[in-house]
Amino acid sequence: MNFDNFSQSLLRYPDLGFSLDFSRMDIPADFSATMSSKIEKSLADLKTLEAGEIANPDEGRMVGHYWLRNADLAPNDEIRAQITEPLKAVKSFAKKIHSGEIAPPAGGVFENIIIIGIGGSALGPQLIEQALGGAKSPVTTYFFDNTDPAGIDSDLATIGQALNKSLAVVISKSGGTAETRNGMLEAKHAYEEAGLDFAKHAIAVTGEGSKLFNFAKDEGFLATFPMEDWVGGRTSILSTVGLVPMALQGIDFQAMLEGAKAMDEKTRSSDVSNNAALQLALAWYHEGNGKGQKDLVILPYKDSLVLFSKYLQQLIMESLGKAEDLDGQTVNQGLAVYGNKGSTDQHAYVQQLRDGLHNFFATFVEVRKGRKGESITVDEVNTSADYLQGFLRGTRNALYESGRRSITISIEEVTAASLGQLIALFERAVSLYASLINVNAYHQPGVEAGKAAAGTFLEVLNEVRGHLTAEKKDAEQLAFECSADTESVYHAAVHLANNGEAQHAMGANAKEDTFSL
Amino acid sequence: MNFDNFSQSLLRYPDLGFSLDFSRMDIPADFSATMSSKIEKSLADLKTLEAGEIANPDEGRMVGHYWLRNADLAPNDEIRAQITEPLKAVKSFAKKIHSGEIAPPAGGVFENIIIIGIGGSALGPQLIEQALGGAKSPVTTYFFDNTDPAGIDSDLATIGQALNKSLAVVISKSGGTAETRNGMLEAKHAYEEAGLDFAKHAIAVTGEGSKLFNFAKDEGFLATFPMEDWVGGRTSILSTVGLVPMALQGIDFQAMLEGAKAMDEKTRSSDVSNNAALQLALAWYHEGNGKGQKDLVILPYKDSLVLFSKYLQQLIMESLGKAEDLDGQTVNQGLAVYGNKGSTDQHAYVQQLRDGLHNFFATFVEVRKGRKGESITVDEVNTSADYLQGFLRGTRNALYESGRRSITISIEEVTAASLGQLIALFERAVSLYASLINVNAYHQPGVEAGKAAAGTFLEVLNEVRGHLTAEKKDAEQLAFECSADTESVYHAAVHLANNGEAQHAMGANAKEDTFSL
Repeated sequence: MNFDNFSQSLLRYPDLGFSLDFSRMDIPADFSATMSSKIEKSLADLKTLEAGEIANPDEGRMVGHYWLRNADLAPNDEIRAQITEPLKAVKSFAKKIHSGEIAPPAGGVFENIIIIGIGGSALGPQLIEQALGGAKSPVTTYFFDNTDPAGIDSDLATIGQALNKSLAVVISKSGGTAETRNGMLEAKHAYEEAGLDFAKHAIAVTGEGSKLFNFAKDEGFLATFPMEDWVGGRTSILSTVGLVPMALQGIDFQAMLEGAKAMDEKTRSSDVSNNAALQLALAWYHEGNGKGQKDLVILPYKDSLVLFSKYLQQLIMESLGKAEDLDGQTVNQGLAVYGNKGSTDQHAYVQQLRDGLHNFFATFVEVRKGRKGESITVDEVNTSADYLQGFLRGTRNALYESGRRSITISIEEVTAASLGQLIALFERAVSLYASLINVNAYHQPGVEAGKAAAGTFLEVLNEVRGHLTAEKKDAEQLAFECSADTESVYHAAVHLANNGEAQHAMGANAKEDTFSL
Repeated sequence: MNFDNFSQSLLRYPDLGFSLDFSRMDIPADFSATMSSKIEKSLADLKTLEAGEIANPDEGRMVGHYWLRNADLAPNDEIRAQITEPLKAVKSFAKKIHSGEIAPPAGGVFENIIIIGIGGSALGPQLIEQALGGAKSPVTTYFFDNTDPAGIDSDLATIGQALNKSLAVVISKSGGTAETRNGMLEAKHAYEEAGLDFAKHAIAVTGEGSKLFNFAKDEGFLATFPMEDWVGGRTSILSTVGLVPMALQGIDFQAMLEGAKAMDEKTRSSDVSNNAALQLALAWYHEGNGKGQKDLVILPYKDSLVLFSKYLQQLIMESLGKAEDLDGQTVNQGLAVYGNKGSTDQHAYVQQLRDGLHNFFATFVEVRKGRKGESITVDEVNTSADYLQGFLRGTRNALYESGRRSITISIEEVTAASLGQLIALFERAVSLYASLINVNAYHQPGVEAGKAAAGTFLEVLNEVRGHLTAEKKDAEQLAFECSADTESVYHAAVHLANNGEAQHAMGANAKEDTFSL
């Protein structure tokens, strides 16, 4: 590629140590011009969103995550206080935990935190823990991010006796999320089995007046921190959801807020060619014809960013994957995201990326600095970091040679500030892209269908429980007695049999199986 | 769905506690019949592969991973001995490590293992560690699976003083994989900095006579275990690559071999409707028109299987993602794989799966038993495991309601045996599907392009090193002096500047930047 073209395609924010290379996306020079009316609308939409308009019409909600890093933007004093007050409270609480002013009843200081949350209430803290946590953290962090009892038991076994120095951080806006409630009740049970008072080892991050809020008050939790209605789960990482864990882990959340704020400011620009978030949204649009026709593969070349693809998978797919557009037309939109890390993935699926199905484009994340401190050379002249850089450049070239496009994002180091920048960049790209394709990026109506179907299944499960007897019955008979769908009854009965609540005699096929007490 | 249809679509191996539900794939009853000649060829291909024919024609290699769990199948006595001899040696070595007969020079017993490998030499051990490791393991396991110095430093910081009780397990067939060599040299340096003799804390798993083999012999490693030419990286999990870590972790690898062997036997059947691996391959073919037109989303509902999607991503994409078919026609084949775990993902990208882009099909993995031991109820009647089952059933139903297809694999528990079954099932499905679409599943020619390009970049890096002076030069001048591509020179110079080997003065754009010592 001509160096002039590369130089022109490289968008840089030198004061942030940030750059974004679109040179391997083959976007025609006049593409922005052809998109100008859509671009104008996108920028205008984001402006009204930031000004506090109802940007999530289906749920009648404001969308306020951009205010979290710049309270001056908040549309009124009440919301401004909802942002600034918790910052002080969180810092003060973490200080007391670290100093032992708030201590476990058994004495000493809290050495572990157990974050109990799911979706946005887990992925953000997991990303941060992986990127910025480590040996120097004042606490070791565990996650209960599912309703899998074996997973919870595994973590509890690792924690062992140190449960008495472990602080449970229960995170749920509504308090009505079953997985989180289950995780909390499993944790409470484990503390009680160990002779410990759960409430004296627990805090909550939740909406005021929620089920969890009331539970925490009634039980006497050590503290509760507020979660606001105008922040959605997948954009809650810079709200109390992310700040409380960060403060406890000794991570400088103020720097992360500043990093996000700086990226927000850069990407409010109406100078299209200098707005990184808008350019990202336009590149997605161009590559996938505004319909997500190519998957987005995220390849950070840095171990500490290994969860970034999973974080973006939620942010992007839950925001953009919508059945209808804002005019009620069926569009089945979205943008599939996956990835892991380089150069590890070169020894895995990069074979397919280079040679196989051309159904994706890549986004490399380069971290320019290899490590803190001195490096040995691993051959005559090069360091491990030189190789990492070599593999990134080599893979980018090899993909482009075979017609596979890529974006390369570069940051100097993985710090609280640069992570804040990356988060803000993608949040804003999602907001802008959603406007380009005319979908509501801030609701998740499809999630309800699965929850409702799960509720129906649990009702069937209890019907089956009530109709199992010593007599052997097949699924059809049980279904008749329970007035329920036969296949659901079958799955319920098999589940009960595998969990000590029924006997299962297998026949030649499912139809001939029988169940009894 | 009609229960009779469900019952007929449910393929069961009751003696293995295994079932596979194709009812939500909408495969026409006559599909197998229309595919009969391809099916016959697939089964015949796999038979000749297992008999020791050169099944990887491009590399002129036999493909022997199915012999690993049944040495009786090996085509000759030499190979048979290559399988059975290491089993004894690995068991005996692990016993000595656990008893302290082989002990760290500092005394005590080895408490940590550091697995140094990449691709197939890391993903298999990572899958197993996540699925079967845990608090009861006699060792804590760390992975150096990249050439990222910061990632290595982070693990070393966590290990801290206990490096003197840490056993490095270096895994590389050729010994020529740069990431693994770099990881080993970084580890060696860290041991030496701590005043420890690396060789007395190291073992190697490698091909006889390889660079690593010779290094280990020269340095006096505690042991070396062989890796054979007829096992590829992505199918090496049941070779010494997986067995050595498992033995050290106290995991019953014999049970895993038995589980894989049992699944192999079931899926050698020429009874098409009762061959789970063949049915899986046919379902993939039907759903993606034999061209991978739908992504495969893996959703295990069990925390301990969270890495299964990453493992399958390598196994499937590296095997199937090929430019040419066996007749040399350009086909750009493949099957994109991603996923994480349920029910966690219902709070993330499942929104898009249900409502958005219809570019995928799902594979649920159900683990029927919730946990070992008793459970509390988390509402009036249900346990956490009941909810997990409810969410799996609910999501499967919600997806199918909106026309998204899925397969459900069920196992009783996550054990060494059931994991062996799952591994064998997918290995064989890949072998059979590769025959259906006529590609070589056992080579990875696309990986070389990236490696070669990386080598070229490292050469440029050294040219730039040699031409940096106190005088400020721009990329074009440096490129002229180095006789190299300007953009590569620019990236090399920026990399050096960020790692203490150059000064970078930024201009208005990349073209105007200058570099000096």
